[in-house]
Amino acid sequence: MATNKNKVSETVIRRLPKYHRYLSELHEKGEDRISSQELSDLTGFTASQIRQDLNNFGGFGQQGYGYKVTVLKEELENILGISTVYKTIIIGSGRLGSVISNYRGFLESGFEIVAMFDRDEKVVGTTVGNHVVKSIDDLESYLEEHKEVTVAILTVPKEGAQAIAHRLEACGIRGIWNFAPEDLDAMEGVIVENIRLTDSLLTLSYYLTEEDR
Amino acid sequence: MATNKNKVSETVIRRLPKYHRYLSELHEKGEDRISSQELSDLTGFTASQIRQDLNNFGGFGQQGYGYKVTVLKEELENILGISTVYKTIIIGSGRLGSVISNYRGFLESGFEIVAMFDRDEKVVGTTVGNHVVKSIDDLESYLEEHKEVTVAILTVPKEGAQAIAHRLEACGIRGIWNFAPEDLDAMEGVIVENIRLTDSLLTLSYYLTEEDR
Repeated sequence: MATNKNKVSETVIRRLPKYHRYLSELHEKGEDRISSQELSDLTGFTASQIRQDLNNFGGFGQQGYGYKVTVLKEELENILGISTVYKTIIIGSGRLGSVISNYRGFLESGFEIVAMFDRDEKVVGTTVGNHVVKSIDDLESYLEEHKEVTVAILTVPKEGAQAIAHRLEACGIRGIWNFAPEDLDAMEGVIVENIRLTDSLLTLSYYLTEEDR
Repeated sequence: MATNKNKVSETVIRRLPKYHRYLSELHEKGEDRISSQELSDLTGFTASQIRQDLNNFGGFGQQGYGYKVTVLKEELENILGISTVYKTIIIGSGRLGSVISNYRGFLESGFEIVAMFDRDEKVVGTTVGNHVVKSIDDLESYLEEHKEVTVAILTVPKEGAQAIAHRLEACGIRGIWNFAPEDLDAMEGVIVENIRLTDSLLTLSYYLTEEDR
């Protein structure tokens, strides 16, 4: 476990979910152990890169033996905090919010959706997914009463995102999963993880266009 | 425009959509020009980084003047191929496929959804978004008749993703926007751009958990 107090780089962190994904598959297949070379063949990262990445957290492998699948999988789950369940609210009950609320990867990843908010009077009180949509006007009073909620998912239009983020910050929310195409201001004590659909599409467009040049 | 034939690194490419996003905002606000320092304040990248990035494509700025907003915006649109419209199909008409088909960023980014496929007999023939869902059995014959289709969006479960990708490759599809949580094999002539929701969630989980340690 992360006894190493040095900051691990974000590039390394972003490879960990991928390692975990493959370890879970190996585990399902009943594999007992795996070498860093085999992990390299699966993931496309070099064996030395993989060993280096894992050494940030203590190693877990043995020379000539490789990694024990169950052990490495569990260690990755500890590192990624999968077993910690973060109570989560969704802001924005539109199409995307609705899909997200039904996303089965949530609880597996340690996030439990407990409420959903919207600013549109017409949807407040209706049921979306498994949640009765609450008014965004009640955000502060809800979070005051539910101190256990620490994460918010933003599926609001670009225009409203920053203001909502600041309200969430003021309420002590610690993490935001942001789908709004807006770069949120840095907020003290709030970790922002962005999903940038349009940026991703434009990257694909770039590579397609580059081939045509 | 990308007259520079040297390969530009992916890291640079992935910053271009962000530049474009800010240039579009400045354009909407009626701003005439912007310095690399002002762009730096907006984007969080250093001014020198921004100049370097843009120099890969010819520069566009003038010492002491900065960048003309309309010009830089248009140049970025050329580089990103936004004005080229790629005819696109969606494979998977479930919740995510349905949201994606309604995503308003598509045409703005140069992608036009022209058809939707599913393997579930029960949904084939029904209307999802603006599309009557076709059977995945008809994928090859459809693409044979519609050579103008070059991009596919995969919103199928993990299990089916790789097989579908190979069928798309065989049909000459050039780009895949992949939402399935599966690393697709490298395919010749196919550009794959992944959206990894679970990996992103686990990264957020890591940072939240790290704070608690």
